[in-house]
Amino acid sequence: MSTYFSHLECSVPCGAGPANPRTVQHLCACGAPLLARYDLDAARGWTRESLAGRTASMWRYRELMPLLDDETPVTLGEGWTPLVPATRLGAALGLSRLYLKDESLNPTNSFKARGLSAAVTRAHYLGARVLSIPTAGNAGNAMAAYAAHAGLEARVFMPRDVKTPFVRECELYGADVTLVDGLITDAGRIAAETGAPLGWYDLSTLKEPYRIEGKKTMGYEVAEQLDWELPDWIIYPTGGGTGMVGMWKAFEEMSALGWIDPVKRPRMVTVQATGCAPIIRAFDNGDERATPWEHAQTVADGLRVPRAIGDFLVLRAVRESDGAAVAVSDEDMVQGMLDIGKFEGVSAAPEGGAALHALRTLITSGRVGPEDRVVIFNTGGALKYLDVLEGL
Amino acid sequence: MSTYFSHLECSVPCGAGPANPRTVQHLCACGAPLLARYDLDAARGWTRESLAGRTASMWRYRELMPLLDDETPVTLGEGWTPLVPATRLGAALGLSRLYLKDESLNPTNSFKARGLSAAVTRAHYLGARVLSIPTAGNAGNAMAAYAAHAGLEARVFMPRDVKTPFVRECELYGADVTLVDGLITDAGRIAAETGAPLGWYDLSTLKEPYRIEGKKTMGYEVAEQLDWELPDWIIYPTGGGTGMVGMWKAFEEMSALGWIDPVKRPRMVTVQATGCAPIIRAFDNGDERATPWEHAQTVADGLRVPRAIGDFLVLRAVRESDGAAVAVSDEDMVQGMLDIGKFEGVSAAPEGGAALHALRTLITSGRVGPEDRVVIFNTGGALKYLDVLEGL
Repeated sequence: MSTYFSHLECSVPCGAGPANPRTVQHLCACGAPLLARYDLDAARGWTRESLAGRTASMWRYRELMPLLDDETPVTLGEGWTPLVPATRLGAALGLSRLYLKDESLNPTNSFKARGLSAAVTRAHYLGARVLSIPTAGNAGNAMAAYAAHAGLEARVFMPRDVKTPFVRECELYGADVTLVDGLITDAGRIAAETGAPLGWYDLSTLKEPYRIEGKKTMGYEVAEQLDWELPDWIIYPTGGGTGMVGMWKAFEEMSALGWIDPVKRPRMVTVQATGCAPIIRAFDNGDERATPWEHAQTVADGLRVPRAIGDFLVLRAVRESDGAAVAVSDEDMVQGMLDIGKFEGVSAAPEGGAALHALRTLITSGRVGPEDRVVIFNTGGALKYLDVLEGL
Repeated sequence: MSTYFSHLECSVPCGAGPANPRTVQHLCACGAPLLARYDLDAARGWTRESLAGRTASMWRYRELMPLLDDETPVTLGEGWTPLVPATRLGAALGLSRLYLKDESLNPTNSFKARGLSAAVTRAHYLGARVLSIPTAGNAGNAMAAYAAHAGLEARVFMPRDVKTPFVRECELYGADVTLVDGLITDAGRIAAETGAPLGWYDLSTLKEPYRIEGKKTMGYEVAEQLDWELPDWIIYPTGGGTGMVGMWKAFEEMSALGWIDPVKRPRMVTVQATGCAPIIRAFDNGDERATPWEHAQTVADGLRVPRAIGDFLVLRAVRESDGAAVAVSDEDMVQGMLDIGKFEGVSAAPEGGAALHALRTLITSGRVGPEDRVVIFNTGGALKYLDVLEGL
C-alpha cells in the first residue's frame, strides 16, 4: 500500500524542481538537504483517530512516511517510546508538568534507530547492497542493526577515540568498522572518499533525505501522547540536529492535516556541549549558518559534531519558535544523568543529562515557569557511557 | 479502579487458606511461593477485543494484574516489546516461522523490568520504604530503577564478580550496592539476614508473590501478538524460572477467560548453562525438585542461579507441556549472541544466545520441525555483557 509520499524538495528551497524518490537521491544540486514531501491535501482524509490500536512503533504514522508502492519497513520495533511523567524531578525543579521522552527504549538503545529504520528501508527498496555511515557512535550502531536485519552490508566510520561499547555493538551486528583519526566530520570525508568509487550508499544524516523522516516521528509521538496539545517547551540535545529539524517538520505537517493548533508551537531549545557548541555560537551571533567548531571535545559522543549540514534548519526552528540555545559543561551533564537516574529511574546518556541541565538554566533565568509543560528528550541510555561514572 | 485481583494462594497447593494481599506477604506457611489469584468468572466479561488501543506496556492487562482499590502502577513503560519475525535466522535454520521476543527493549535493558514494576507497585502500596533484593545482575538494576521512580530506597545484593555494568547501573539510580562473596543464593541469605531486623521489604523472586505477575505478561503478549494462537514452541532461558512459571500461569488464566484454545499449549523449553543446570539435571533424572548446583559458573549472569525456590513449578510446566530441557555451553551461547546480531540486528544477552543454540539442538534432534512456529526469548540486550565479545 502506497502512502501520501510524493517527492523530494530542496530544504532552502533554492527553486530547483522536485527530485524523484524512485532513484537514489542525496543532496540538492545547490548542496542543501532534500526533504520528503507528501500530498497533504489528500492526507487530510486520514484522521488522527485512526491511529488507535495501531502498531506500537513509529510506523503507526506510515501514511506520512516515505514508502512507495508495496514497500515494507525494515523494522525492529523502533519508536512509540514512553513519555514518562517526571513527577519527582519536576517537584525538585519546581515544575508541575515535566515529562521525559525516553528514547533509550529504542533498538540499539537510542533515538538513532528511528532515522536508520527509515533510511535503511529506503536504501533496501532502492537496491543498495552496501551501506556506509560516518557517526559519532549511536547512529553507526543503529545502521549496523538495520542493515543486518535487511541482509545488507554495513560499513561504519567513527572517531578512533569513541567509547568501546559503540565499536563492540557494531561488531555484534557484523558491521565492518573503520576508526578514523579525527571527528565525525573527518569520518564523513573518509567514508565518502572510500565509498563513492565502490558505489556504496551513503547514509550521512541530511545528506540522505530519509533519516529525518524517521526522526520526525518524535514530534508526532509527543503530540499524540499529550492528546494533541503540544508542550510549551521541548528541550533537545543537538548534534547533527536532524531530530530538531524533523520535529519542526512534523509540526508543520500536523498543522496542515488539522491535527494540532496551527499557531501554538513549542519553544524549541537546542542543547550542546560547551566543548562543541557551533549552533549555539551561531544563534548568539545572529548568524544564519554555523562556523565549524575547532578542537571539539565532550563526553557526550552524540554532541561531538563540529559542523552540521542542517545547521541553518536547526537555527531556523529555534528562532521561529522563540526558543533558546544552551551550552552545558561535561560536569553538569554527568550530574544531569545522575539526577535523571536518581529521581526517575531512567537510564540517561550524557546528552539527556545535558538537556536536564539546560532546563535548570532556563528555570533560573525565569524563562521557564512553574506551570509550563516541558518535555526533555533523553536521546539514549547510559549503558554505552558508563565510563563517565567511574570514580564519581 | 480495582481489578479482578482477589487473594493469594499457595502454589503447591498445600491446603492453607487464602492469604490477604492487603498486608505484606512472602512465602506460604509451608515454605512454597504464593500465587496471585483473580476472580476469573467475573473476568469473563472482560474481552480481549477491549485491548485494542490500550497503553503499549504490560499494564494493558491491568484487569488481571495485582492492583487493589485505586492503586497506580509504578511504571516506566515496561513490556509490550516487539515480537520480531526472524526471517533471515529462520531461513538459516530451515524454519519458516521463527520469532524473537525482544525483551532488551524494556527499561533497564531486560525482562526483569516487568517483574519489578509489578513488585515495586505493590511494595509502594503496602507502605514499604526500603526495598532489598538479591540478584545475579539485571533484577537489581530493575529494582533500583523502579524504587527510584517511586521514591523508595533500594538495597541491592549481588555476587562480587558480577560484570561491572550491573554495579554502575545500580549506582546510577542511587541504589546502595553490597557485593557478596558467592552467588545469588549467598546474596539472598545475606540480604535477608541484614534486612529482616531492619524491616526491609524483600523482593527475592517467588519469595515475593508479585514479580511473577509482571513476568506472566510475556505470555499474554505472545498470545496477543500472534493473534491469540499460541506458538508450538517457547524457548526460554531459565535462571530463577519466574518467567517460565509466569507464562504457564498466563496460559491457564487466558484459557479460563476463553481467550485461547483451552487444550493447545506451547511446548516449553527451559534453557540453562552447562556450568549451572540444576533444573535440567532434575528434569533428566525425573525429580520433582532440583538439588543445588555446585560451583556454578557461566558468562550468562542471569543463568548463574544454583537453586531456585520455584524449581518444582518450572519442572511442572516443562513436563505438562511435553517440552524439553537443554543445557548450552558458554561458547555456544556467545556464538548464539553473534548469530542473533548478525542475522537479525537484535542485541542479545548470552541468555538469548543460549536460547538460540537450544533451538538448534532441538532442530538437529528432529523435535522441532520446519513448519513449527517457534518463539525464542531474548531476555535482555548485549550491552552489559560486551566483555564476552572481547578478543573474538
